[in-house]
Amino acid sequence: MVPAGIGGRVEGVHAVAAAVAAGRVTRLHVESGRGDRGAAGQLVASARSAGVEIRTVDSIWKLAETDAPQGLVAEARPIPYAAFDDLLVDGAALIVLDHLEDPRNVGAIARSALAAGMTGLVVPRRRAAPITAVSFKAAAGAFEHLPVARVSSVADCAHRAKKAGVWTVGLAAGSPDSLFGLGLLTESVAVFVGAEGLGLAKLVSDRLDLEVSIPMSEPSESLNVSVAAALACFEVRRVRAAE
Amino acid sequence: MVPAGIGGRVEGVHAVAAAVAAGRVTRLHVESGRGDRGAAGQLVASARSAGVEIRTVDSIWKLAETDAPQGLVAEARPIPYAAFDDLLVDGAALIVLDHLEDPRNVGAIARSALAAGMTGLVVPRRRAAPITAVSFKAAAGAFEHLPVARVSSVADCAHRAKKAGVWTVGLAAGSPDSLFGLGLLTESVAVFVGAEGLGLAKLVSDRLDLEVSIPMSEPSESLNVSVAAALACFEVRRVRAAE
Repeated sequence: MVPAGIGGRVEGVHAVAAAVAAGRVTRLHVESGRGDRGAAGQLVASARSAGVEIRTVDSIWKLAETDAPQGLVAEARPIPYAAFDDLLVDGAALIVLDHLEDPRNVGAIARSALAAGMTGLVVPRRRAAPITAVSFKAAAGAFEHLPVARVSSVADCAHRAKKAGVWTVGLAAGSPDSLFGLGLLTESVAVFVGAEGLGLAKLVSDRLDLEVSIPMSEPSESLNVSVAAALACFEVRRVRAAE
Repeated sequence: MVPAGIGGRVEGVHAVAAAVAAGRVTRLHVESGRGDRGAAGQLVASARSAGVEIRTVDSIWKLAETDAPQGLVAEARPIPYAAFDDLLVDGAALIVLDHLEDPRNVGAIARSALAAGMTGLVVPRRRAAPITAVSFKAAAGAFEHLPVARVSSVADCAHRAKKAGVWTVGLAAGSPDSLFGLGLLTESVAVFVGAEGLGLAKLVSDRLDLEVSIPMSEPSESLNVSVAAALACFEVRRVRAAE
């Protein structure tokens, strides 16, 4: 049985370094010649001294899932999922992804969310981008620190958040209310972000306390979802810092 | 001689639709079966009625430069570069990219910059990511509207901006001053963004009026460059709207 968790495979210097630092890498495949010098060389040396099994391979491309493994593919003990209810604490700042399709976007959002000081990421269990080696590469180590919970239903998780006293705020392009300066971001909050090009499902949208948009200039109609999520995460940080 | 400009080739539904709407597509290669239905079908029909030559091809992959052409590759009249000095107007809000390496980041930044209401994008002429079909795809149409200027030297362009009364502000991870709430963003301003993982060159950094950082939580050390640029562009917008 595959253990429930993420990051069983990690690729690229930054993501592998973070997994090694977290003490969860068990075996590191290094492309011949790549582990002798530079950042990869330092990483291989520190992994070896930490007891990681190092295997040299002729070509990393047979093992790699990402398009830029930088000569490194690590096998690691997966990071267990957090329980969603455990994230519903006082001061929570969660980002909830409603069925994103691109694993890279999920990773990019994790990176921004951790940097902004968000306290957790929530993803649906099914019909959504899995959190893969591509996600880990885009996250540049963020998944080693940011709790990730899986939920069966995004709509139900909005309900549970509200019951726990956490405000639920959706990003919705059409909303007349602006994300910027939203006072309630200082309270416990979960920000819901919809899928690329589709936005939030109506079933989710209907359950939220409120929806806000990111003000945009003509003729722009949308932002990249990972940019929109980053703006929301840093607005939480900005409003809280300004309090 | 190749005309000086960008976007001679455009791929993907959104980017091609924007180029067709701008009236600059001369020929559209459509993968067999893709132009009969859906968004691509509508686009092919409107291109045809606008007088664009449509060519059906068995496989789009022989022509495509991006990894998701969605069955569409357009040949187009390039968009001419703007003259940098013409962008130095009262109320300017420019974003200057100091030798980015990834054409996708350049496109993603153009998309965010246009949406935030920035008035121009500036890129170095040499040793920087070219603005390719990959950039146009990431920009989702933004290059059809956002003026782009090329400069021989980013450091020199900082000098010229200052002489024209435009504040020059760099994003620098180490700066003690925060991007958020920076009052001078209400005035004419050029925001300088450094290369992926490297930041601004010292030669550029030394010429700027000031540097600011994006406040981040431990243990994060950096953001994706297109996220950092988006945060800067939308902070310009936010501060100006709050005036």
